[in-house]
Formats: sequence, C-alpha cells, structure tokens
Amino acid sequence: MVDSSRIYTAALVVIGDEILSGRTHDKNIAQVAAWLQVQGIRLKEVRVVADDTPAIVEAVNLLRARNDYLFTTGGIGPTHDDITVDAIAEALGVAVIVHPEARAILETYYETRGGLTEARLRMARTPEGASLIPNRYTGAPGIRYDNVFIMAGVPSITAGMLDALTGTLDGGAPLLSETIGCWVGESEVADLLRETEKAFESCQIGSYPFWGEGRTGANFVIRSVDAQQLAACTRTLVEGLAALGKAAVPGGI
Amino acid sequence: MVDSSRIYTAALVVIGDEILSGRTHDKNIAQVAAWLQVQGIRLKEVRVVADDTPAIVEAVNLLRARNDYLFTTGGIGPTHDDITVDAIAEALGVAVIVHPEARAILETYYETRGGLTEARLRMARTPEGASLIPNRYTGAPGIRYDNVFIMAGVPSITAGMLDALTGTLDGGAPLLSETIGCWVGESEVADLLRETEKAFESCQIGSYPFWGEGRTGANFVIRSVDAQQLAACTRTLVEGLAALGKAAVPGGI
Repeated sequence: MVDSSRIYTAALVVIGDEILSGRTHDKNIAQVAAWLQVQGIRLKEVRVVADDTPAIVEAVNLLRARNDYLFTTGGIGPTHDDITVDAIAEALGVAVIVHPEARAILETYYETRGGLTEARLRMARTPEGASLIPNRYTGAPGIRYDNVFIMAGVPSITAGMLDALTGTLDGGAPLLSETIGCWVGESEVADLLRETEKAFESCQIGSYPFWGEGRTGANFVIRSVDAQQLAACTRTLVEGLAALGKAAVPGGI
Repeated sequence: MVDSSRIYTAALVVIGDEILSGRTHDKNIAQVAAWLQVQGIRLKEVRVVADDTPAIVEAVNLLRARNDYLFTTGGIGPTHDDITVDAIAEALGVAVIVHPEARAILETYYETRGGLTEARLRMARTPEGASLIPNRYTGAPGIRYDNVFIMAGVPSITAGMLDALTGTLDGGAPLLSETIGCWVGESEVADLLRETEKAFESCQIGSYPFWGEGRTGANFVIRSVDAQQLAACTRTLVEGLAALGKAAVPGGI
C-alpha cells in the first residue's frame, strides 16, 4: 500500500565471509536497493558482516529496531557455514523449528532429486512463528518474521524472492529521480549545484564525476518525491549549465 | 611489517546515497577487501551509509575503536554533497583546516586546468593533524588521521590510493586460501564439509553453490593462515569428494 504521509525505511545486512574476503563481488546491495526504490522504501544503511553469530545478532537487532524493514541476504543454505537462521532466531529471542510448510516444499522439490536428506532439511528450519517467502528456483524458501526478511545470498535466488515480495509491503511515495550528464569538471559547477539544490527544498542533487576519453565529466542526479519540483529543479540545473556554456545530456553520460 | 603474533582487523565505511539508491553498483568493497587480504589484514565489517553526518559519525567512531584500521570511501570531492571530511573531523573531535601540502598539490594540478577555485580548494580540507594519501590520478589526495584512512569513491582513484598505501601498514600473517569446485549439490556434501573442517582446527571451509548448464555445482573455499594445514585440509576434502564419486576441480569452477 502506498502511504505518502511518511517515509518508510529499510536496512540490509549482507551475511558472508566470501564478501569480506573479496572473493565474491556482492550483487545484492544494488539489487535490493533498486527494488526498494520501486516499493517506495528508502534503504538507509547496509552492513556486511561475517558468518559470525554475535556480529549478525548485533546488526539485526539494532537495524530492525530503527527501520520499518530489515532484509538479510546469505547464509541460509544446507551447509555448516550457513548460520543465519540460528543467529536471527537468537536475535529475535525465539526457538528454531522445522517449518512444516517449508518441509513440504522441500519434500516435493527433492522428490525427483535424490530425496530430502538431513542436510537439505536444514533449509526448512526457521525461527518459530515465521512465514515463508517463495523461491521458485531451488525450492528452499526465504523467511519472514515480523519486519525481518531473510533471503538467499545467490543473487538470482534473491531476485526471485524479491519478486515474490513485490507490492506486498507498505511503502511511501516513491523517490523519483532525473539524471543529466555533462562534460564538465564537477568543481566548475559546485556553486551552481549548491545554489540549485537550495532553491528547491524537496530536491537533493548528487554529483558523480568520471573520467574518460581524456575528458572530465559528471552525472548529476536530482531526487525528489515531488514530480513538479523535480522537473523544475532539473530544468533550472540544465539552464544553469547552459549559461556556463555547457550542454546537458538528458539521462546522463 | 608482518607481525604473525596477532590478527589485524579493519572495517570499511562506504559513504554515498548513490549506492543506497541502487544507482551505482559499489566496486570498492571487493577491491578494499582483496587489497586488505594481501596486507595480512582481515576485513571484519562493512557499512554503507548515506551522505548524512550523524550516520557517518556513528559508523566511524564505533568501527575505528574496535578495529586496527578504518577505511572510508566516498564523499571527498568538491561539491556540496561531499561531507565526509567534515563528518569525520566531527567524529574525531578536531577542526577542519586547509592542509598546506594538499593545497600545494592542488595548485600544481590545476595550474594548467583553469586554476584553483574555491570549490577545488575544498579538496584540500582535512581534519587538523592529518597526513595525506597520494592520488596520482586527479591531484586531490586521500587523508590519513591516526588509524582512519579517508579515500575517494571513484573506484579507479580508490585503487590508486590503496596502491600508495601498499606495504605501509602493519599486518598479520596473510590468510591463505585454496578453492576447489565440484559438480555436486552442496546439500550432498554437507556432512563431509562439516567433518573436514572439524578435523583441521586452523581451517575454515566456505561453500558457495551455483547453478549452470542445467546442473548444480559448488565451490569450496578453504582458508587458513597455516599453509601446511591448508594443504592437508584441501587434500582431505578432495579425497572425501572422490570417495563419493565426485571429481574436484582445482581452482574452482
């Protein structure tokens, strides 16, 4: 449901030694962030923590208290290094059970794949009182408990779980954005950016420089929940760049 | 200096609305993580926070206290949304000054590029008492204050700053790793993984599943600071897979 009267916030905890070792490049931060934007929910903070119970408990308990929603990715597979469910149950102060519905899903999934072994049954374990998030790829579901959403670490599976959640969460008015690019050093337009942002109270302007083709450029992203203010702010910035003899590229470079 | 008597740890704070909005895919977590591995320093936690002073202050003060090193990326450019230096100076409880050496670097850099404007001079601002981290790409240096390292957000510039720091920090024995891949469902080898890890006290085994070519596979990453234990643990795992009729692929799939 869209509730424009307030801002909805979320945090994300990425769980996994493989991210902290540099072995695996995280893809879930960007995909969860982009998905939340569409739901009208602002991602306020991300933490990447190790496969370590105290680190998970600390992050989950702090961030679920200060946000409308808390998402986690990683650590819900069948192996010994998958400790997310136990750690979050500890954070929530509830027991871990074998969820009957999850067990039934896994029994069906593994019927033609060698049967439901003890290791595979680990993926039916949830904090007591949780509901499930469907996973159309590999059977093993994600888990929802109150405002905590426990998802897989493999990005394609995370994507499927996010897809299953689309439109089911309350959110505020989506944050809208416009991007314009310009072949200009951002230091040349710092005053223009600051003054333009100041003139449009509901808008924030981000400046993202890059270097390429032997030239310096930047993309400017204007964000607002107000479509009219967003359009007016973008127009003012484009005109300001033109006054400096710089052409703006709609959509960015 | 390599000091094998203890473990050195670091945290990373990634500063930027553009990461939290999903607009920009972060590349600094992976590159800082991989660089730290080579320095013999373990990355314990990453936080991604908004361009928001209280959020930066909170993360910096907590994480610099509980790690040997704290790194930040992002928010040190010339524009109004670059608030990292001010926020970190606030966290450190020191004033912000124009660093004479940084000013001289920028004067030289911009001599042939339109001169040092007020906006560009912002990039010479540092917490009082800081030293500089060279940036061979765009002049504007990174900043070191005690155990806090303030770096650029643009990944190629971050890379140059890391390069300038290579070998200058005390670290412990580097964490070594071996990767083997196998076309096997990780749930089929969960017991083997757990028992193998248990048999080699200094080793951790991570299991990273994937799906491709209509088949299920996983990479197993064995980590240890002890080269002999690492080799023995890897050998045991390869033999264990062979006993289940599964061939291990050295280096992973």
